[in-house]
Amino acid sequence: MDPQAVAERVRAGDLRAAARLMRDIDDGLPRAREALKLLYPHGQQARVVGITGSPGVGKSTLTDALVGAYRAQGLTVGVVAVDPTSPFSGGAILGDRVRMQRHATDEGVFIRSLATRGHFGGLTASTRGVVTVMAAMGKDVVLVETVGVGQDEVDIVRTADTTLVVTVPGLGDDVQAIKAGILEVGDIFVVNKMDRPGAAAAARQLEAMLDMELDRERWAGWRPPVVLTCAHDGRGVDRLVEAIAQHHDLLAAEEGRLMLRRRRQRARMELVDLVKSRLLARLEERLEAGGRLEELAERIAQGQADPYTVCEQVLAELEGAPL
Amino acid sequence: MDPQAVAERVRAGDLRAAARLMRDIDDGLPRAREALKLLYPHGQQARVVGITGSPGVGKSTLTDALVGAYRAQGLTVGVVAVDPTSPFSGGAILGDRVRMQRHATDEGVFIRSLATRGHFGGLTASTRGVVTVMAAMGKDVVLVETVGVGQDEVDIVRTADTTLVVTVPGLGDDVQAIKAGILEVGDIFVVNKMDRPGAAAAARQLEAMLDMELDRERWAGWRPPVVLTCAHDGRGVDRLVEAIAQHHDLLAAEEGRLMLRRRRQRARMELVDLVKSRLLARLEERLEAGGRLEELAERIAQGQADPYTVCEQVLAELEGAPL
Repeated sequence: MDPQAVAERVRAGDLRAAARLMRDIDDGLPRAREALKLLYPHGQQARVVGITGSPGVGKSTLTDALVGAYRAQGLTVGVVAVDPTSPFSGGAILGDRVRMQRHATDEGVFIRSLATRGHFGGLTASTRGVVTVMAAMGKDVVLVETVGVGQDEVDIVRTADTTLVVTVPGLGDDVQAIKAGILEVGDIFVVNKMDRPGAAAAARQLEAMLDMELDRERWAGWRPPVVLTCAHDGRGVDRLVEAIAQHHDLLAAEEGRLMLRRRRQRARMELVDLVKSRLLARLEERLEAGGRLEELAERIAQGQADPYTVCEQVLAELEGAPL
Repeated sequence: MDPQAVAERVRAGDLRAAARLMRDIDDGLPRAREALKLLYPHGQQARVVGITGSPGVGKSTLTDALVGAYRAQGLTVGVVAVDPTSPFSGGAILGDRVRMQRHATDEGVFIRSLATRGHFGGLTASTRGVVTVMAAMGKDVVLVETVGVGQDEVDIVRTADTTLVVTVPGLGDDVQAIKAGILEVGDIFVVNKMDRPGAAAAARQLEAMLDMELDRERWAGWRPPVVLTCAHDGRGVDRLVEAIAQHHDLLAAEEGRLMLRRRRQRARMELVDLVKSRLLARLEERLEAGGRLEELAERIAQGQADPYTVCEQVLAELEGAPL
């Protein structure tokens, strides 16, 4: 199917066409990029909400609860779950996660999981591509859920319209759970599992940290609220949805000045991710060809060469035949 | 100072020369690479131990306890603490972390923290460079501590001689704390904070998961042990040190066949990381020059172009003038 036809079907809400395109994006196929060019302008109305936090804080349960809340408002929802350490799920599509099963038969919800494959990355670019598809399908809200630790993972949610940073009481002895770098990307902070001891204290600690950080350019006068939730039984989820809406209103105010600023930042990172992933894919192809990489690695492992010298040989070869 | 002189001083244990070289590595300076070429062959005897796990599991306290145990054995120790989400510590050197302070005046211990800067990565390559320096300084053991979630972070510890995966009781409702991808990279599993309720259950759960995974090629007959520790008061740390030694003996057995296999894998990843980071550094330089990236991002943000089309323009420019 040509990219034009794919784009049209996706915009018409064809689930199979969308799923196939997402697989093509993941595989880095040129035809996927052609379709994305056509879809990109049509995905600008969707609200993109990033959800991040350490493993075990209940991000997927919270995502599930948000899906339910938005569906109750009559909004359609896309979910992109990024799991960079899972060796599975590279090709999983609908209802691929146990917890999401209650939405699996709801046509207003589209769920897709992504995982990294190989050492050449490309996850960030794939994720953005999948978000673009969901937005172009007309999803009102796109939730992007990712473990918030690695740089790539943080970059993914940093460019959402609104980013939730999720934590739980008693995660660390100290503030380890919310490292400064993650604090920086949050527009709303969530203390999940609020029924656990220490929830109020965790919220107070976050408030105190936020008080010290008020000048952050990202927030532009917005004081990130701290919301307590129990995603499991739904407590606090309505307040969270309300906070997301308030943040969205702020971004849209003043003729969208803040929204534009954030989208400029997103465009910058999106472009860099794309160029990076294309260059690295070409590099991978080149190095893997004819077992070249294995051969060079063997020389290093045997002590016949050091990686720094071998790297320069590889770079010199690339000069002669650019990627 | 020329690279030859730097390498000699580092090998003689000169702390200031080593610290300066590490800073140069972080800054990606050519002279640092020249020194690394000279140092690389001299760092092959060090045992590299990776320590990974979610935030809040007590990795730094455990690292601290291991440092103490190795020092008590008369071994010298290098510590590389990688914190990819922290905006701080890019240039911090000796005794830069509160918990490590008790070793700050011990000449047998060298501690260095690394953090990412910018969107073009390079952390993995820097980390490997710093490990090379510590090994060439003659450190008997090099501990590499990193948050175990992002792909880059997992890759860093994947290539250690022995990798510890650390968890704590009650981190998640389920097995979230130890995702399959992290399970795969562990040679030894640690349930830290063993005084917390649920420690024995967490250990049993790990054992059960490991039983299902016994065929993993990485382990080659090694059954990763599960060790309970309380890093805070030192309980279990001796058993952990013993497990690390047993794993090392296994790698060294059969004329180092397993060690060679692991070092071949390390060489492969090391080379890829180096080439990647050099290419991306050149890309960054090119894109940032003259505000080119800002200009392109603005066009995308304003809806005048889509990032996929702009990406192809950038790639076409690179064809004409390769990186």
